[in-house]
Amino acid sequence: METTTRTVPLRYRERMTDEQLAVYAILDEALVCHVSYVLDGEPRILPTLHARDGDTLLLHGSSGSRLGLLGREAGQEGLSVCVAVTLIDGVVLARSAFNHSVNFRSVVVHGRARLVTDVEREKAALDAFINQLVPHRADHSRPANPQELAKTAVLELSLAEAAAKVRADKTDFDDPEDMGLPHWAGVIPLKTTAGQPKPAPELTDAPVPDHVLTWRPTR
Amino acid sequence: METTTRTVPLRYRERMTDEQLAVYAILDEALVCHVSYVLDGEPRILPTLHARDGDTLLLHGSSGSRLGLLGREAGQEGLSVCVAVTLIDGVVLARSAFNHSVNFRSVVVHGRARLVTDVEREKAALDAFINQLVPHRADHSRPANPQELAKTAVLELSLAEAAAKVRADKTDFDDPEDMGLPHWAGVIPLKTTAGQPKPAPELTDAPVPDHVLTWRPTR
Repeated sequence: METTTRTVPLRYRERMTDEQLAVYAILDEALVCHVSYVLDGEPRILPTLHARDGDTLLLHGSSGSRLGLLGREAGQEGLSVCVAVTLIDGVVLARSAFNHSVNFRSVVVHGRARLVTDVEREKAALDAFINQLVPHRADHSRPANPQELAKTAVLELSLAEAAAKVRADKTDFDDPEDMGLPHWAGVIPLKTTAGQPKPAPELTDAPVPDHVLTWRPTR
Repeated sequence: METTTRTVPLRYRERMTDEQLAVYAILDEALVCHVSYVLDGEPRILPTLHARDGDTLLLHGSSGSRLGLLGREAGQEGLSVCVAVTLIDGVVLARSAFNHSVNFRSVVVHGRARLVTDVEREKAALDAFINQLVPHRADHSRPANPQELAKTAVLELSLAEAAAKVRADKTDFDDPEDMGLPHWAGVIPLKTTAGQPKPAPELTDAPVPDHVLTWRPTR
């Protein structure tokens, strides 16, 4: 796994565990997460935006959404959630159907998500969400106004109960007794790639700024 | 949204709703899904493989996994699950931080997942999982043997309660009062691309078969 300046702290790096570094790198690379919670005893799942602030995970919601409302109701006790982020790096083909798989990097976080009520912290979270989508983007857009902040619900939860799971390239694809079978085995590597930026109709003649041109989904 | 031969039935197409077609197309394109369930009142999430058989969603698990065990315990009543599949098609940049977003296509399914106990149907499901990863792959690999089938838990649930949600390209990125701001607005399109297939070490001189060479993650 690649570590980047976004995932590796400049100080105290030696105090971080490999597990923490893996969790941070995967969360920092992913564009969306899936949040699950329980409503009337039934599981619910919501894809949404996230960002990381140190050892805290920030989740983006709307004030009027189910997640926003439940987060508000839960108060300081917090809403029990489970959050997953999954990056797919390849399709693994084996001689046996059973040993087919995908190469992936995933993080699952369990914890209690609390609504961010402090306005300054909510503003910082919104900056973090758009910088997660496009690095430095918060410097190139109008910050949220009070009406927009009121419409937004930011939930935060600790990464204390986060675990990373990684399946990377291996060289043994099959069980020994299958090695003689006449089937191809190997990996089809996958990555997310960015196409040519498509400007808003009224900006077709405007220059595309550097932070857009240089953006790469896999960092 | 593009429909393909995999998503459009040859017969009775006129009986399908646009919603069904959208749900099918998204499920058929995605390589992984996220399954949530409730354990001791707490939400859990598991990324896993899926496939579709008509209006039934098949979920891949291990017999010894929590999901496999809960599925077995639940019997014919089934385990209450929520399944989400999310495809990200682009990053949406607006002049205002608030109007940033992602273009996506997602499906959320609610239902009761039942363990597939019939051996022939379990075999067919395993073929469907690897054909979901790589079309036609089941014809090019050794089918699962009884030991492998015993290690696998396939859960199935109806797509009766499935909903698709799509955010596609729009031309209005910002509120009218923000149109004069000096920030770039537009979309960075994203797609998943396949790299050069990497054969198993002992197959570096073997030809790469057509079903691997022609594989494309976005169909």
